[in-house]
Amino acid sequence: MSTTLARIAQVIESRKLENGGDPAKSYVAKLFSKGDDAILKKIGEEATETVMAAKDARASGDASKVLYECADLWFHSMVLLAQFGLTPQQVVDELARREGVSGIEEKASRAE
Amino acid sequence: MSTTLARIAQVIESRKLENGGDPAKSYVAKLFSKGDDAILKKIGEEATETVMAAKDARASGDASKVLYECADLWFHSMVLLAQFGLTPQQVVDELARREGVSGIEEKASRAE
Amino acid sequence: MSTTLARIAQVIESRKLENGGDPAKSYVAKLFSKGDDAILKKIGEEATETVMAAKDARASGDASKVLYECADLWFHSMVLLAQFGLTPQQVVDELARREGVSGIEEKASRAE
Amino acid sequence: MSTTLARIAQVIESRKLENGGDPAKSYVAKLFSKGDDAILKKIGEEATETVMAAKDARASGDASKVLYECADLWFHSMVLLAQFGLTPQQVVDELARREGVSGIEEKASRAE
Repeated sequence: MSTTLARIAQVIESRKLENGGDPAKSYVAKLFSKGDDAILKKIGEEATETVMAAKDARASGDASKVLYECADLWFHSMVLLAQFGLTPQQVVDELARREGVSGIEEKASRAE
Repeated sequence: MSTTLARIAQVIESRKLENGGDPAKSYVAKLFSKGDDAILKKIGEEATETVMAAKDARASGDASKVLYECADLWFHSMVLLAQFGLTPQQVVDELARREGVSGIEEKASRAE
Repeated sequence: MSTTLARIAQVIESRKLENGGDPAKSYVAKLFSKGDDAILKKIGEEATETVMAAKDARASGDASKVLYECADLWFHSMVLLAQFGLTPQQVVDELARREGVSGIEEKASRAE
Repeated sequence: MSTTLARIAQVIESRKLENGGDPAKSYVAKLFSKGDDAILKKIGEEATETVMAAKDARASGDASKVLYECADLWFHSMVLLAQFGLTPQQVVDELARREGVSGIEEKASRAE
């Protein structure tokens, strides 16, 4: 998993315009060229599609759409992270920190 | 990264009621006890909070909130995956498949 | 307000394919021709854009984008209502019912 | 419709802290006391719940949940409007303007 996420993050990084990404050839470069709002709209869209896929999966018994939409959501999250100079490693480190410091149940003590 | 995500997925799995998760003690077990809709609402909420965090980060110059909200989004995505018998490894495999089969730019050829 | 919302609802209704709506000429007819998921995706998108507009408005001091995005959100809500055989009048009646029965604060007594 | 929406907008307005709204007694006053982010989170939540309700309605054949969630979405939109000094009348006027100037199909000519 580690290698894959890091490699995808590198490819995403290479699509930034300052790294030679070409909006005419690359979907990710096109997102970067449009800026924050285009990326944020994708986060909202993919979250909505994940919710719809889960409802469909429960009705059909086929969970594969949940997998695909979740992959879309994570992929666009990685584009957002790159846009803000962040990496999936930092997200995973943050998840590990929460687990280490106060257990995976940290949120239980937070206002929901 | 790999080890951490797999370990967190295991902890989430252990919080399922049929695996002994206790909704009175565990935030994740409580989510599982509430079922699909409670988990899906969290996906929507965390996506919205990620969008808000990105707007705040651009205004403040501090990207850390984007990191925290993205971690929340990935964490709740992992609860959703578990709810549908899926794992983060499968999401990462799907991302690798897209990269391998048709390049990370697969989506470029899809209707946006 | 009443006349306007009712008139817009009528126009939306006339864009249904069974009422002669033409997807090649009408945005709303095209949405209807695509079905539930296309309309629901718009609800998610417009909600996200409303959130972004509010963040931008607070930064810029210009609230007009909130107005435009809210209009988009209400418009697509009305398409969704039509898709399910509902009208804005019923939404307004429901809001009035809540106000009448238990006060506009009904939600205060519900789990948030 | 007109009277109802305007009256609800007035009640919402009266719940602002500067107009005497009491967060201990009023759900809306509590939202105002929490500020922009609390209101925006509700927009995201209610949009997600509307999407879920539509999926459920299609499965069950009962559209009433769509109506309730749409009412929730419009209600919280009206809180957001009030937070930015706007009114539902302005939203309706904007919808009328679009219809008058370029037809209800204005969006057809915009990038989707």
